[in-house]
Amino acid sequence: MKIALSLALVTASIMAANLVDAAKEAGLKPIPASKAELMKLIDNKNNKITDAKVELGKKLYFDPRLSKSGIISCNSCHNLGEGGDDGVSASIGHKWTANPHHLNAPTVYNAVFFDAQFWDGRDPNLEKQAQGPIQASPEMSATKEHVETVVNSMPEYVKAFQKAYAKDVKITFEKVTDTIAVFERTLVTPSAYDNFLNGKAQAMTKKEQEGLKTFIDKGCATCHNGIALGGNMNAFNVTGTYEFQNVGDFKGNAEGMVKVPSLRNITQTAPYFHNGQYWNLKDAIKEMGRIQLGVAITDKEAASIETFFGALEGKKPAITFPMLPASTATTPKPDMN
Amino acid sequence: MKIALSLALVTASIMAANLVDAAKEAGLKPIPASKAELMKLIDNKNNKITDAKVELGKKLYFDPRLSKSGIISCNSCHNLGEGGDDGVSASIGHKWTANPHHLNAPTVYNAVFFDAQFWDGRDPNLEKQAQGPIQASPEMSATKEHVETVVNSMPEYVKAFQKAYAKDVKITFEKVTDTIAVFERTLVTPSAYDNFLNGKAQAMTKKEQEGLKTFIDKGCATCHNGIALGGNMNAFNVTGTYEFQNVGDFKGNAEGMVKVPSLRNITQTAPYFHNGQYWNLKDAIKEMGRIQLGVAITDKEAASIETFFGALEGKKPAITFPMLPASTATTPKPDMN
Repeated sequence: MKIALSLALVTASIMAANLVDAAKEAGLKPIPASKAELMKLIDNKNNKITDAKVELGKKLYFDPRLSKSGIISCNSCHNLGEGGDDGVSASIGHKWTANPHHLNAPTVYNAVFFDAQFWDGRDPNLEKQAQGPIQASPEMSATKEHVETVVNSMPEYVKAFQKAYAKDVKITFEKVTDTIAVFERTLVTPSAYDNFLNGKAQAMTKKEQEGLKTFIDKGCATCHNGIALGGNMNAFNVTGTYEFQNVGDFKGNAEGMVKVPSLRNITQTAPYFHNGQYWNLKDAIKEMGRIQLGVAITDKEAASIETFFGALEGKKPAITFPMLPASTATTPKPDMN
Repeated sequence: MKIALSLALVTASIMAANLVDAAKEAGLKPIPASKAELMKLIDNKNNKITDAKVELGKKLYFDPRLSKSGIISCNSCHNLGEGGDDGVSASIGHKWTANPHHLNAPTVYNAVFFDAQFWDGRDPNLEKQAQGPIQASPEMSATKEHVETVVNSMPEYVKAFQKAYAKDVKITFEKVTDTIAVFERTLVTPSAYDNFLNGKAQAMTKKEQEGLKTFIDKGCATCHNGIALGGNMNAFNVTGTYEFQNVGDFKGNAEGMVKVPSLRNITQTAPYFHNGQYWNLKDAIKEMGRIQLGVAITDKEAASIETFFGALEGKKPAITFPMLPASTATTPKPDMN
């Protein structure tokens, strides 16, 4: 009995080790277990992550006064309590305007690992990305000048920038968005899957391991690979061979490509696809097989892959809700129009 | 020299003691320093405050899926990072609708100390109050059934209700709002002013003490009294003797009375008055003297009272931003219309 049990454990370990090898061969990579290694991956050499910048960036991320109306913050559409997105198919912004291309807000969690930002991959990093939604008229609808005036109008913000950078810091729009990006770089969610790939064979259940195997065998990792299981531009041709339902007029980048979304925390970020077309994860899995891989994924296989996705639910960083500085006489008034 | 200093300190102490007496005589009351005493004041004997209820109530408070659109939470208009309100003159709700009576969102902080809820005082407590904005069509625009379906659709919520109440708990709309109210009951912000009234003569600066004296001498405490420095219906006749600028059509309660707002954290909750008409605190102070008390308040006196208001900025409870349960197949889809 004892020997049988030990043998079973050894067999399970060998299977797990084989699966880890297969995963790595398929281009899947864990979030490093070592904090120092992780820091190397997420840091910005031009604007080093520090506690003071993260704390300030968090305030700015949650501050709705950066928007024209004064009521929309980064967190409105990238809600850190809701898997890092907003749970609606097309995001709603200034004046209740839906995204004109019917685009779905991607999660901000682990976005630091993406090769490219936005669905068309037009921006290379979070620093550049953060400038977009603040200014986009159907989103936060603010001008650079608005953001600069807001932040400079509050002595508490000015002091926090001085503390985070230098006494003579100039608080420009780009300094604000760079600081938000520093906070976003820390939004990394290690999961059971990472522990498994990092060598803890017991971290994923047998069923989750089977799901990972199905995921690899079916070819999903062809596009969903790297640390983010996505975040690259190497697939997902919108205008090409497949028949996406006609929701929105988004045409992807110049080559008609759309960014592969991350699968981390995917169980928490319905609806799915760039146009938020699918609410059911199993259906989305099967549809991707059909459209992108030209393979049939059975209900059973889709269920198995979905079970694996459970292991991608990561531990979110604990966020103490920030208390924002009070507006002053020079803070721009909200403009709802 | 030593004697002179001691004498000065003694004199200051006597002055402070006299001021505390004057404040108490004027009906001003501190938040009790003793936790047990505070608990007696804030607890609901029909639905006792427990850690499990507070944690669950916090999640519900921050969950936008309680709204019809899925993007408006209690925190949208009563933002705990912004002094407990939204910083706009008339709150914006479903479909970007401004409050039809041009009413300003009051702060949720210390609302547990109010005698009556809403600007017309129509509800007696937070439990009843919480039912209003969720259902109001220009606010969260949800039906009771929507809220019940949302919460019951997520096993994590169901488990949390079972933990907070009992295994056989029925998760009704009222159970949801009662639980939100339990969380809100804990949103109490003790300040330097409370320490001062509780006997720490040094807690308020000399200038803040002078401001408190001016506040009492001018008669402000006639209406702004009790623990909340407001929250009662004993003044503020909208349709009566004074000339409020014609913003909004709000007529108050049956007697034309509007609730006296709390002055706690008032430096963080511009704009002011039930219609959000004034952005500048000094102007608001002077206007209240003219309209409500029939007295002229000079710029210097208004500045002194404003300095006292600084001592009412309270310590906010630390809020760990809640991670919300993931939606399931039975969670109602967002409806933007």
